[in-house]
Amino acid sequence: MDKDYVVAVDLGGTKIYTALVDLKGNIIKEKIVSTEANKGDIAIVSNIKKTIDYVLEDIDREKVGAIGIGSPGPLDVKRGLIVAPPNLPFNNYNIVEELTTTYNLPTFLDNDANAATLAEYMFGVGKGTENMVYITVSTGIGGGAILNGKIYRGSTSNALEVGHTTVFKDGPRCGCGNKGCSERMSSGTAIMKRALEAVNSNVNTNLKNYENITAKEVFVEAAEGDYVANDILDEALSYLGLVVSNVMNTLDPDMIVLGGGVINGGEVVIERVKEIVKHRSLSIIAENCKIEKSNLEGKSGVLGAAALAISELR
Amino acid sequence: MDKDYVVAVDLGGTKIYTALVDLKGNIIKEKIVSTEANKGDIAIVSNIKKTIDYVLEDIDREKVGAIGIGSPGPLDVKRGLIVAPPNLPFNNYNIVEELTTTYNLPTFLDNDANAATLAEYMFGVGKGTENMVYITVSTGIGGGAILNGKIYRGSTSNALEVGHTTVFKDGPRCGCGNKGCSERMSSGTAIMKRALEAVNSNVNTNLKNYENITAKEVFVEAAEGDYVANDILDEALSYLGLVVSNVMNTLDPDMIVLGGGVINGGEVVIERVKEIVKHRSLSIIAENCKIEKSNLEGKSGVLGAAALAISELR
Repeated sequence: MDKDYVVAVDLGGTKIYTALVDLKGNIIKEKIVSTEANKGDIAIVSNIKKTIDYVLEDIDREKVGAIGIGSPGPLDVKRGLIVAPPNLPFNNYNIVEELTTTYNLPTFLDNDANAATLAEYMFGVGKGTENMVYITVSTGIGGGAILNGKIYRGSTSNALEVGHTTVFKDGPRCGCGNKGCSERMSSGTAIMKRALEAVNSNVNTNLKNYENITAKEVFVEAAEGDYVANDILDEALSYLGLVVSNVMNTLDPDMIVLGGGVINGGEVVIERVKEIVKHRSLSIIAENCKIEKSNLEGKSGVLGAAALAISELR
Repeated sequence: MDKDYVVAVDLGGTKIYTALVDLKGNIIKEKIVSTEANKGDIAIVSNIKKTIDYVLEDIDREKVGAIGIGSPGPLDVKRGLIVAPPNLPFNNYNIVEELTTTYNLPTFLDNDANAATLAEYMFGVGKGTENMVYITVSTGIGGGAILNGKIYRGSTSNALEVGHTTVFKDGPRCGCGNKGCSERMSSGTAIMKRALEAVNSNVNTNLKNYENITAKEVFVEAAEGDYVANDILDEALSYLGLVVSNVMNTLDPDMIVLGGGVINGGEVVIERVKEIVKHRSLSIIAENCKIEKSNLEGKSGVLGAAALAISELR
């Protein structure tokens, strides 16, 4: 391939992060703007184009091979459509056709979880693995997998919905309709909900000193020794360890990479997950499988979009 | 390929089922003998050879392409070793070398779960799928997966150990060391253990009328309306539905094939699993994914060994 760069677009509910990226995953030029989701689909596409125009400004266009775009799902990847994400005002919008036409560059779309998985595999801690799972734990829980060296999408392009596997049979109802999903028990949102329950009860906890409470405050107070904050984290992490162990026993990978806000809440998180997995997973599988923290934090989305474009070009 | 047949060996703890199979999965000639595991590894290999000699007796050897053998694990598939199965007196025995040398035929080994998975995919209800999971529920719970049209083995050849994924965080201890494994909650052995608890308690149940109680008696009494037998099945099947749903949300396959003694306990089993999955799995995944009962029962092992040989020959 005689191309040196790709354009990577990380489309999110609040911001658009676009970069010109070389084939080794180095960001050459970047631009972050507000998505302005409230202004409608046309405004968003216009914002995307402004960022692309900016990163392409000073570059020899002949050296640019493709555009990669990572977006929240659901998507119709084959047809290039953003179907109807909860936080974006798109309705079967053909983003691939739009960008292909505007820039005369092949454009590749995938959901943000798959993009981040590719980023970890091509540029992150997952480099050199053959079977790798990426799990992100932030407001929700999502995931993706590289199996036999290739992204595994599943029959409806929804594989690795590990956030909606059940970890508590008769647990609380999840937004998806199921009960006791890992996302309902271990995500940042789940931790926040438990914290609100505590604040609105008579229990003795320093969490009451905060006006707006999120998972972050729970981590802060837990580190300070607050009993209730620790109790909330213990529960969330016990289920997180369980789902990581389940994915490990199911896919027998070389590595599971963990990313997202909850994982970065403190060293306690990855240590606790590793401890649980050691006791829950089959030893022949667990002894072979590394559990690593993502080292691309903040850039996994945009590097994922780049990885998508690069892997499709090859 | 100018070959018309393969030799298939289904090696089990109690019996050896060997067959000459054509490339479409038709059994041409077959022999079942007792494994005689108590007589040691040499005796077992001698029994295997006797069955192979028998099925090859009247056939033009030029038409036979390979030997496939399915065995309980753990195995070292790459080196051809039966490592140390719980119910067979082998210790790193090189069965592949032994049979290759004796018969001058390429020999392929895999564990029984992978073999059965291949059988369902090539000759059973899974024919024509692209992503298919097979789960067997008998004394234990095991599984295998075809992903993107190929058997997926994982990094240590132990993928799809779904029987040791956790379905009950603080459940009873499983033989593997973990707590609340699906095998510990939903296998035939789990059902039997619950029945024994009932028999040894003061609860009012017809299960007390049996001398030796297994999952079979629980199915019989449940169908007769026994409250306790139904209670035991309800619990086991609720966890079975949960693990099937978890596998579905993780792998997003076209089909999940269920086999084994518990699945054949009655129509109630597959109906109940389907109902639970409908409520637990993400609808976009569940609406696409069929749940089917194996139609190879009793022959999935031997046809799996055949499928293994045929797929390696191609």
